Amino acid sequence: MSDTPDSVVRTYIERHRAAFLDDLAAWLRIPSVSALPEHRDDVRRSAEWLAAKLARTGFPVAEIWPTAGAPAVFAEWPSGDPDAPTVLVYGHHDVQPAAREDGWHSDPFEPEIRDGRMYARGAADDKGQVFFHTLGLRAHLAATGRTAPAVNLKLLVEGEEESGSPHFRALVEERADRLAADAVVVSDTGMWSESTPTVCTGMRGVADCEITFRGPDQDIHSGSFGGAVPNPATVAARVVAALHDADERVAVPGFYDGVTPLTDDERELFAELPFDEEAWLRTARSHGTLGEAGYSTLERVWARPTAEVNGIGGGYQGPGGKTIVPASAMVKLSFRLVDGQDPEKIERAVTDWVAGQVPAGIRHEIVFGAPTRPCLTPLDHPALQSVVRSMSRAFDGRTIRFTREGGSGPAADLRDVLGAPVLFLGISVPSDGWHSPDEKVELELLLKGAETTAHLWGDMAETMR
Amino acid sequence: MSDTPDSVVRTYIERHRAAFLDDLAAWLRIPSVSALPEHRDDVRRSAEWLAAKLARTGFPVAEIWPTAGAPAVFAEWPSGDPDAPTVLVYGHHDVQPAAREDGWHSDPFEPEIRDGRMYARGAADDKGQVFFHTLGLRAHLAATGRTAPAVNLKLLVEGEEESGSPHFRALVEERADRLAADAVVVSDTGMWSESTPTVCTGMRGVADCEITFRGPDQDIHSGSFGGAVPNPATVAARVVAALHDADERVAVPGFYDGVTPLTDDERELFAELPFDEEAWLRTARSHGTLGEAGYSTLERVWARPTAEVNGIGGGYQGPGGKTIVPASAMVKLSFRLVDGQDPEKIERAVTDWVAGQVPAGIRHEIVFGAPTRPCLTPLDHPALQSVVRSMSRAFDGRTIRFTREGGSGPAADLRDVLGAPVLFLGISVPSDGWHSPDEKVELELLLKGAETTAHLWGDMAETMR
Repeated sequence: MSDTPDSVVRTYIERHRAAFLDDLAAWLRIPSVSALPEHRDDVRRSAEWLAAKLARTGFPVAEIWPTAGAPAVFAEWPSGDPDAPTVLVYGHHDVQPAAREDGWHSDPFEPEIRDGRMYARGAADDKGQVFFHTLGLRAHLAATGRTAPAVNLKLLVEGEEESGSPHFRALVEERADRLAADAVVVSDTGMWSESTPTVCTGMRGVADCEITFRGPDQDIHSGSFGGAVPNPATVAARVVAALHDADERVAVPGFYDGVTPLTDDERELFAELPFDEEAWLRTARSHGTLGEAGYSTLERVWARPTAEVNGIGGGYQGPGGKTIVPASAMVKLSFRLVDGQDPEKIERAVTDWVAGQVPAGIRHEIVFGAPTRPCLTPLDHPALQSVVRSMSRAFDGRTIRFTREGGSGPAADLRDVLGAPVLFLGISVPSDGWHSPDEKVELELLLKGAETTAHLWGDMAETMR
Repeated sequence: MSDTPDSVVRTYIERHRAAFLDDLAAWLRIPSVSALPEHRDDVRRSAEWLAAKLARTGFPVAEIWPTAGAPAVFAEWPSGDPDAPTVLVYGHHDVQPAAREDGWHSDPFEPEIRDGRMYARGAADDKGQVFFHTLGLRAHLAATGRTAPAVNLKLLVEGEEESGSPHFRALVEERADRLAADAVVVSDTGMWSESTPTVCTGMRGVADCEITFRGPDQDIHSGSFGGAVPNPATVAARVVAALHDADERVAVPGFYDGVTPLTDDERELFAELPFDEEAWLRTARSHGTLGEAGYSTLERVWARPTAEVNGIGGGYQGPGGKTIVPASAMVKLSFRLVDGQDPEKIERAVTDWVAGQVPAGIRHEIVFGAPTRPCLTPLDHPALQSVVRSMSRAFDGRTIRFTREGGSGPAADLRDVLGAPVLFLGISVPSDGWHSPDEKVELELLLKGAETTAHLWGDMAETMR
């Protein structure tokens, strides 16, 4: 290997690989489960461990930021160059619950390396993906001979992502000055597969609601009254049934207003991926596909807004029969939103539409949860090319393709509050088992993540100058 | 009062009123709750008490008939006249559960007379209505000077009606020879109101089913997979929504095949009743009417078949949101059936129709409960006029109008197995609170029930000869 910057990076990472993995394992041993009150101290310990580690990595600023819930970690390392752009890296240090008896082959909080993989809760989601930044940053400094990164680097690692980030937006708003950045790099996603490195360019937003329909003041006899009074379970079902038209498009008027359409280029980029529908159905544990006419499965879950009933209930659900007209019924709906859709407008459109579906004699109420906004990286944003180039260098010159993520996350809060574009840099693969037993991270990919960031800061400093 | 047969009957009943009410109260003190295993002995005691009482009333035959569940009571008193018709009276001696803390103003199993009403569980449903037959029969003998009734009188008083009569049809089939009759008189219904005496001429049948829809093998992430795979809760809702057309007619093909239409005469008879829709809505505890286009509320609940969703459930029903595509959903449907509809044909029609609603990727199963057949008394049947005439004599010559019952009962089993028409003779009023706290019976109506039967056996013996 000649002494190119790339080979220096690779050599640095190889040399520090063992210590890096030891450190990561130490962090993974802290069961920072944000959902469980009995792990509150562990979440705090996890934040303290990370802040200390970032300080030792060289960050001049490494702070614990308390919230109304679990604490976040903030770190900052100015580049020293007044023209350097500022980049904020986002991740989270809390993890999903895990117990050996859930089906783990080793203790979820005692990391174990088997066949080139590290098995532990949080190995991929998200401690591993946060932690590769420490190694990548040191490699960046080693390869460039710098004493500070080429960009003003900031890190925000929250402690409540697995609990729905309930205090995240308030934290970002409150600390907007210190978080100010020209771009945000979110390291909490994945890529297509080990052999197909990809960059995610968007996550969907989500708005969800619960609608309660009330009919008679109590369950009443369906023989004496049924067929002559409106049944709230029928009304609930009719609302759900009316949610989609015959083409499986969402039938709420105005729902598609403003939706950024898929361009031909984007559809081609999706189509280039080696998608195997049967394998996808196995992952979905489903037995058929069904969705909006005119779009492929990937387009449906990545780039099109959807409406889904997450729960429905009313009347008698026990064993046997009970011939009643139920007093009430409810549905829980969620709407995945894409770029161009505004959750507040969607909430108004859904509220108006539901009101128009309810017959006289049925009273209803609709309650929305806090929405998450969609987040799309413009394909032509120069910083996106930095990510693609850096990743390609780490992946031996391979073509980097593009994906999106059908789910939703707090990335849009950073974009909206800070006014900065969001880039996704994730190295996890679908087999990593996020939220499942035997979560793991591929060590080779973890190191390629570090290698990517070792190139990224210099590239972004050039590109965004 | 001159010494007409009517005045003899009335005098007899007045004289024996106190002893009759004492006896009824003693029977009501036995808490014969068939639904609760801890009352099994009480149900048996209730049967024994009744059989003994019927023997003392004069029935030469009074037997306990065991079933696979609770025992029934059978009694028989032949008329001695070889040309006399045979009449079977049906009722039940079991009652609904009741506890003081449900809202009763006195102990439900310690009968109390207040303001001309007897309050107790079973006072109207159905011990009171069975028991007036004993007084009426003795008055019939006193007024006619007979030593045996004018008809061959049989009584069948089952012990499981409040538990859905699970062993009744088998009992009737097994004992069909001993139950053989020319007409059946069912005393387990009501009339319009104290001031509007009526005869019920029909009960609806019912077929019910539970349909389970299965989608993914487990709940899956609605962000990653929603909108691209079929959602079983959506399919359940679509089936319920498709159950009725825009006119609120049942949309299952063939559902109305064979339905005996309401004649103009029948619609006129319904329209003669002093129906107050606002009062009816208060009784229904409902806030609006909705039903099959072209029919009045009474026609909808009495004479038209209906489809109702009694329960629906699927996915997440707890507090807050959970963005999943649920693994399964279920609906419980019931269909009220009217004369001319065959439950087996309805089950086949529903099964076929549901199968046609289910998209690829969703598996479903449908399970029906035991159906109850509809039962309609032909308005032109001569025995019906006997009931009307006898009732009018008891009610001081008032016009007797006609109602039907929207609910369902085992009457059709008697009709079908024994091949005899069913007549309904009930004196309960809507305010009697069947199945509710403070169930009561109006004493004046209870005695008019006895008076009706005192006239009825002679009239039927003449009319059906």
